[in-house]
Amino acid sequence: MAKRTAQDIRRRNRFDALRCVFAAPGPVSRQDIAETTGLSFATAANLATELLEAGVLREAGREESKGGRPRARLAVNAERGALIGIDVAETSVQVELFDLALSVLHSLRLPLRGADVRPEEVVGTIVAGVEQLVVASGTRPESVLGAGVSVPGLVEREGGVSVFSPYWSWRDVPLRALLAEQLTMPLYLDNPLKAATVAEMWFGAGREVDDLVVVTLRAGVGAGIAVDGALYRGASNSAGEWGHTCLIRDGRECRCGRRGCVEAYVSTRGVVRTLREVAPDSPLLDADEATVVGAVARASAAGDPVAAETVARTARHLGMAAADLLNLFNPQALVLGGWVADRLGEPLLEQAREVIAAHALPATLQALTLRLSAVRGNPVALGAATFALEGFLDDRETFGTVAAGRRAARAARERTS
Amino acid sequence: MAKRTAQDIRRRNRFDALRCVFAAPGPVSRQDIAETTGLSFATAANLATELLEAGVLREAGREESKGGRPRARLAVNAERGALIGIDVAETSVQVELFDLALSVLHSLRLPLRGADVRPEEVVGTIVAGVEQLVVASGTRPESVLGAGVSVPGLVEREGGVSVFSPYWSWRDVPLRALLAEQLTMPLYLDNPLKAATVAEMWFGAGREVDDLVVVTLRAGVGAGIAVDGALYRGASNSAGEWGHTCLIRDGRECRCGRRGCVEAYVSTRGVVRTLREVAPDSPLLDADEATVVGAVARASAAGDPVAAETVARTARHLGMAAADLLNLFNPQALVLGGWVADRLGEPLLEQAREVIAAHALPATLQALTLRLSAVRGNPVALGAATFALEGFLDDRETFGTVAAGRRAARAARERTS
Repeated sequence: MAKRTAQDIRRRNRFDALRCVFAAPGPVSRQDIAETTGLSFATAANLATELLEAGVLREAGREESKGGRPRARLAVNAERGALIGIDVAETSVQVELFDLALSVLHSLRLPLRGADVRPEEVVGTIVAGVEQLVVASGTRPESVLGAGVSVPGLVEREGGVSVFSPYWSWRDVPLRALLAEQLTMPLYLDNPLKAATVAEMWFGAGREVDDLVVVTLRAGVGAGIAVDGALYRGASNSAGEWGHTCLIRDGRECRCGRRGCVEAYVSTRGVVRTLREVAPDSPLLDADEATVVGAVARASAAGDPVAAETVARTARHLGMAAADLLNLFNPQALVLGGWVADRLGEPLLEQAREVIAAHALPATLQALTLRLSAVRGNPVALGAATFALEGFLDDRETFGTVAAGRRAARAARERTS
Repeated sequence: MAKRTAQDIRRRNRFDALRCVFAAPGPVSRQDIAETTGLSFATAANLATELLEAGVLREAGREESKGGRPRARLAVNAERGALIGIDVAETSVQVELFDLALSVLHSLRLPLRGADVRPEEVVGTIVAGVEQLVVASGTRPESVLGAGVSVPGLVEREGGVSVFSPYWSWRDVPLRALLAEQLTMPLYLDNPLKAATVAEMWFGAGREVDDLVVVTLRAGVGAGIAVDGALYRGASNSAGEWGHTCLIRDGRECRCGRRGCVEAYVSTRGVVRTLREVAPDSPLLDADEATVVGAVARASAAGDPVAAETVARTARHLGMAAADLLNLFNPQALVLGGWVADRLGEPLLEQAREVIAAHALPATLQALTLRLSAVRGNPVALGAATFALEGFLDDRETFGTVAAGRRAARAARERTS
């Protein structure tokens, strides 16, 4: 039986209170937090006070309340500190600096060279990126509250280890330990599916619903799952490995060595292969894979039948696979994100919707909202930074106990007096 | 954002405390409850007191503690009341009477006649079964704390409505309301997948792990999912609809109207169809479907090559489908239950294990225990009775507030004085 301590419950409540502030269009009152989260007013007020004392929230005016004294309105204190989000992809590393309101302050992309990139190169690239970003933005290094790092494949999160990489011959690389030799801020490791899902939970569809599936279509394909407002990781943080579900028995070869996997059809490479099936001599094929997907989208929009057929087949594959996924999870929302979904956009969504409608069960469909991700920018980097925010909110020094809260309050009073 | 109230947390803690008592080999102390659940000693002690006052637990001796006063040991008070579990299947209704320790006291099975059974017949059969059972066991009707009813298909749980039946032309049948016209105990409606999973959580693999997938193979096929010790229902209680996942594109016709569904291969009927493919003239085919599956198991064990090939093909289908399911959920345990798994048993399990090992991801496999259900008797009826137990534990009259607990304690003192 998993242990659910009072500490776990406090952490979850703290996350919910802050997610509620982020999701609101403007400053909120303690009463708003109580109403949105379902927590008692006393609990919501305590959480708000704790977040104010830690500087995560700030007072943002007052509203008149009926008959009582004016209620303080609260907002995220963007200037409390900075967060870094890092998206390690197959050919590049994107490093982004955020304020505490998770607005991007600075961003840069550094290339990775060669076919089998070694861990030392990735570590060197990340460290160089972080240092450039901190210098360029004039950020004081000690104000960086944490950095989240997304690496593809299977990640052992607690230990900060990249267990398996789909691109490189990495096995059990202690990435966090390697980074910690050169970076001083707290570091949080996870993979892009989990990062994109956490971004969606805090800043996308998850602001409205608590059960969602986030399908990411890029070089890799997978699903992130949120259950009851919490990321579902499974027993070894590999839940959501949807990309290697069998879509077509004895179908296309997949880079995993099996045949007919979902990923072989709806990843960046999958779309290129579909185009090649539709028109082996298409001039659109003369580019790198990511560029081809963009070209297919533009050509299809312009009425090119080959490109339109490529989008239609991709939507059919996606819809068939998604229908089964949805029957299993019965979520309130399915969100499509990643390069392929971003480029092929609404036409992919609308054609996939028809296939899903024909293949999913009525109960599944009735509960479901299907949409493209509305998270702007790079959701993986944003999600990685959100892991750092969650890590900071979980910091026992700052939020350890009620006693620690009182000590912080006393210290704050002493500083201002 | 889903609201998680203090009431929800108390309910969950109460469930966990009682699951811990059920799972222990003998009576437990308050300290044991705290250690197993991860709750503070004060919380565990309060929960124990509340359950004692409600009569759900009883004192069962004392153990010496180091230096302190002897600790009371607690056990389930089997005689506190009775629970009823009802499994409505395609051709019969099983009604079972349990004590509060969930031991079966009496059981009976009543047939359903005809192809398209009407709701009135099912209601009449359930009512007759309950009345017979109560009379035969000499149970005082007022001591029945609740009855759980499992009906196949999609169930709207809160309203107690059978939304859709896979066997009969039912649409939105208000089954609980129909039953409540004739039965006075609280009634809880859900489907067999959910019931079998709850039985597994309280009395099977779920006593050791919190993330599990329970695959039920009978006339229908589906998966029940427990996440972090709680049943995962999805947005409209239809999560786990695995039976209609596409296993083989354009494969066998399924009764759902689609082709190639998992259910068409690994349900009772699916096994019969596989036998027919292996040997269209097999004498084993001359019986009803459930009997055929039993005959295949016996013949295979006796060395019959046709039966052995039927089991092997069934294991291959099951393993392929289960590998994808496991990659998505990454559970700690996969439990196989239902008529097909019960009859084909270890040979099915061991052959499916090899297929799963060849097709699931290493991270999935490493975390996984694969086993047959160890729940004795009919897990659907047991699970239905467990829903009634959960409903009783959630009863606001008995467990509403601390104040109610105090009132109950005072009343108990007054009764004994």
